[in-house]
Amino acid sequence: MSPEWSSSPPELLLAVDRTSGRPLRTQLEHGVREAIRTGRLRVGERLPSSRELARTLGLSRGLVQECYAQLQAEGYLVTRPGSATRVAAGAAAPAAPARPGGASSRLLADFRWGVPDLGSFPVQDWLWAVREAARTMPVAAFDYGEARGNAALREVLAGYLRRVRAAAADPEHIVVCNGYAQGLGLALRVLADAGVRTVAFEDPGSSATIGGAASAAGLRAVPVPVDEHGIDVRALAATDARAVVVTPAHQWPTGVALAPERRLALVEWARQRDAILIEDDYDAEFRYDREPVGALQGLAPDRVIAMGTVSKSLAPALRIGWMLCPPELAGPLARQKHRSDRGTATLDQLALARLIESGRFDRHLRRMRATYAARRTALLTALAEHAPAMPVTGLAAGFHAVAHLPRGADEHHIVTAARELSVGLYGMSTLRAARTAATPPQLVLGFGNVGERAIGEGIAVVAGLLGGRAG
Amino acid sequence: MSPEWSSSPPELLLAVDRTSGRPLRTQLEHGVREAIRTGRLRVGERLPSSRELARTLGLSRGLVQECYAQLQAEGYLVTRPGSATRVAAGAAAPAAPARPGGASSRLLADFRWGVPDLGSFPVQDWLWAVREAARTMPVAAFDYGEARGNAALREVLAGYLRRVRAAAADPEHIVVCNGYAQGLGLALRVLADAGVRTVAFEDPGSSATIGGAASAAGLRAVPVPVDEHGIDVRALAATDARAVVVTPAHQWPTGVALAPERRLALVEWARQRDAILIEDDYDAEFRYDREPVGALQGLAPDRVIAMGTVSKSLAPALRIGWMLCPPELAGPLARQKHRSDRGTATLDQLALARLIESGRFDRHLRRMRATYAARRTALLTALAEHAPAMPVTGLAAGFHAVAHLPRGADEHHIVTAARELSVGLYGMSTLRAARTAATPPQLVLGFGNVGERAIGEGIAVVAGLLGGRAG
Repeated sequence: MSPEWSSSPPELLLAVDRTSGRPLRTQLEHGVREAIRTGRLRVGERLPSSRELARTLGLSRGLVQECYAQLQAEGYLVTRPGSATRVAAGAAAPAAPARPGGASSRLLADFRWGVPDLGSFPVQDWLWAVREAARTMPVAAFDYGEARGNAALREVLAGYLRRVRAAAADPEHIVVCNGYAQGLGLALRVLADAGVRTVAFEDPGSSATIGGAASAAGLRAVPVPVDEHGIDVRALAATDARAVVVTPAHQWPTGVALAPERRLALVEWARQRDAILIEDDYDAEFRYDREPVGALQGLAPDRVIAMGTVSKSLAPALRIGWMLCPPELAGPLARQKHRSDRGTATLDQLALARLIESGRFDRHLRRMRATYAARRTALLTALAEHAPAMPVTGLAAGFHAVAHLPRGADEHHIVTAARELSVGLYGMSTLRAARTAATPPQLVLGFGNVGERAIGEGIAVVAGLLGGRAG
Repeated sequence: MSPEWSSSPPELLLAVDRTSGRPLRTQLEHGVREAIRTGRLRVGERLPSSRELARTLGLSRGLVQECYAQLQAEGYLVTRPGSATRVAAGAAAPAAPARPGGASSRLLADFRWGVPDLGSFPVQDWLWAVREAARTMPVAAFDYGEARGNAALREVLAGYLRRVRAAAADPEHIVVCNGYAQGLGLALRVLADAGVRTVAFEDPGSSATIGGAASAAGLRAVPVPVDEHGIDVRALAATDARAVVVTPAHQWPTGVALAPERRLALVEWARQRDAILIEDDYDAEFRYDREPVGALQGLAPDRVIAMGTVSKSLAPALRIGWMLCPPELAGPLARQKHRSDRGTATLDQLALARLIESGRFDRHLRRMRATYAARRTALLTALAEHAPAMPVTGLAAGFHAVAHLPRGADEHHIVTAARELSVGLYGMSTLRAARTAATPPQLVLGFGNVGERAIGEGIAVVAGLLGGRAG
């Protein structure tokens, strides 16, 4: 490094470094810009003439003139005929604000729900699929793709949904999106455009997500209670909703499967009300006691938008989901997707298609089913030992359970106290839209991203809080 | 294959195939569902008893009972105590509509604008970057990421934007998105929330994209004319806009660079009006006559949202872009991004970071600059030969040019006639918001995705239409 400092005017400290390999003109431009930005050169201030600066820095005058011309073109400098070059009015930046320091705490066991086992993401399989996709991708596929999603992926998804979810799936009626949240947002906008004014959602449920998406679409969101048979269709019918978001296979978060008569009642309601059922099929791949209940979509493909995602089956970081929709909604949904972001990344779509086609996706799911089944057992074993009196429900599928705390227990207190013991617990009340004094205290225990050993240790540590005995 | 057909009742043709490897129960369920969906089993129709069907198909009765129970849970069948199992009311699907047959025509030369050379996408570099990213990605990164984008990519982008675009770039003020269209949509929503009611845009320009995004955000969009110095800031000031979308480095589509005094006037307008400048920095990487003009953002980082994308520098299929914004908008933009889709795919973000960091991105850009410069020369050469009287402008940067047709020429006719000669030409009028009889007929000639040879051949073929002589 051999910086050569200019000395005139003294406040303009410009340096060029001939050993850096960066073009001298670029260095000089950068130096002047920074001097203006940081306030070392102030608005209206006169710059040295190009001749003067060239001499001071040992550069050619032409180079300095080019630099000034560039910065004039960018609006940092002004030159008037017969006058000196000056810093342009308005060419100054506010100081950057201080950044808050982030502190992340490590937990002994984190029963956070909604996350699959992140360490099990099949990295090698995914890289293989990306490579295969890139290798076989036609050049035209690097262009903007179809807004509704790549045809190859839609074909593969339709087959998968028919086979695994008993869906009535036609690739023409699938719109690929970046996961459930985007899909829900697009669907609610399309329904708002079609005249829907109110969307209902299950309570407890994803009230924050649905409420946010509804408000962005200009819709009112109303909660409908869930009982041990699933959503209360009679209560739903008493609202003015013409759309409802449901989780029939494994209600989120109570874990109940929608009872057969309720399924039929829901479809009947949709037909009579001219309404749309948005089926959030979030964790149907993981069912332990029997085959997963088929998608509601298969029962009423003309009334259901079935949403799927790889956020639970692979990883949230991939941001890939899909909507299987009634034929007449495929066009409007694709147009909303196009307006929103011009389509999901093509290489990722093709990689997912290869992953499913090749059987690697199924293999991964089988492996994960075993993993989650073992964690489920570990959780039940730990709870049976440390909190034997506490009922646990909702465990037929997925990777979360509902723990029913003793009447009168304080959810918030237990969650806070557990955090102090380095255990992440999460209360049901954050998932409730309607909270009353009679609302039973419950915990939603996620076991997707916590190992068997941590499950056992974590439950032992918080046993006292759960009304049981410490291990 | 050894199908065994049931014969009772005759209309229920169910088969199980013991050699297929698929579980018999799954096959049976599938068969009944399909029979219901396709109408072979009608609503209310009685199914054979489980004993009867088991005997017919040579299956165990328990298996058939399980199958019926599953389909009952899914809502396809109903069973009432003491009565036969029947097809449930409402369990039937509408027929799939016929699909339109798509015909894609191959062109001799396609001067479509807005697309880079798709065949030059650096597949091997990208795969390397994805692999490197996956190899070094911490397990936690497979979770939902930061809504505003991965910290590593924001750091790399800030460095890149400082270095290449002379931007005042802080990683804390960058929000990663899925390309320009999504970024624009998010930005307009944030501005609408902040009380902005009208957004202005350049005419000619991306009126359809901006109009669509504005309407989705509940904003009014007003066109402002562009002359040979760029957007007319006086005309802008006469509107009630408090936001404007501009392309200062290389106006889209006229190709003029915003004149220095206009840059300053624009910033001054934004300060006085308390307005935001949305800078669409779409093709600044490719400038032929000198260094690219620095981003407007560097001049007024408190007033500019600078949008960037890899759609021109790498490929549209990647769907990655970014917004560098005033400090106080970073939070609201990140929240909009979160609501919209929970963030851009993390592995893709990390791959882009590796690609830039490693120097491979710069190397690709250098290669492409040479490619586009050669195509630009080929276009100018062909036009000089075949339509020497036709002025061509806007060629200082990017990969499109504006061809000025003879006064009185009919854009639409020329475009249509060229298509019949297998040459894709595109008229300027589709990019104009205000069209009058005095609007000069022009073509926007994209040369990003068309080879040198095709450029020469294509122009020769349409020479007669351009007022020149055929080759």
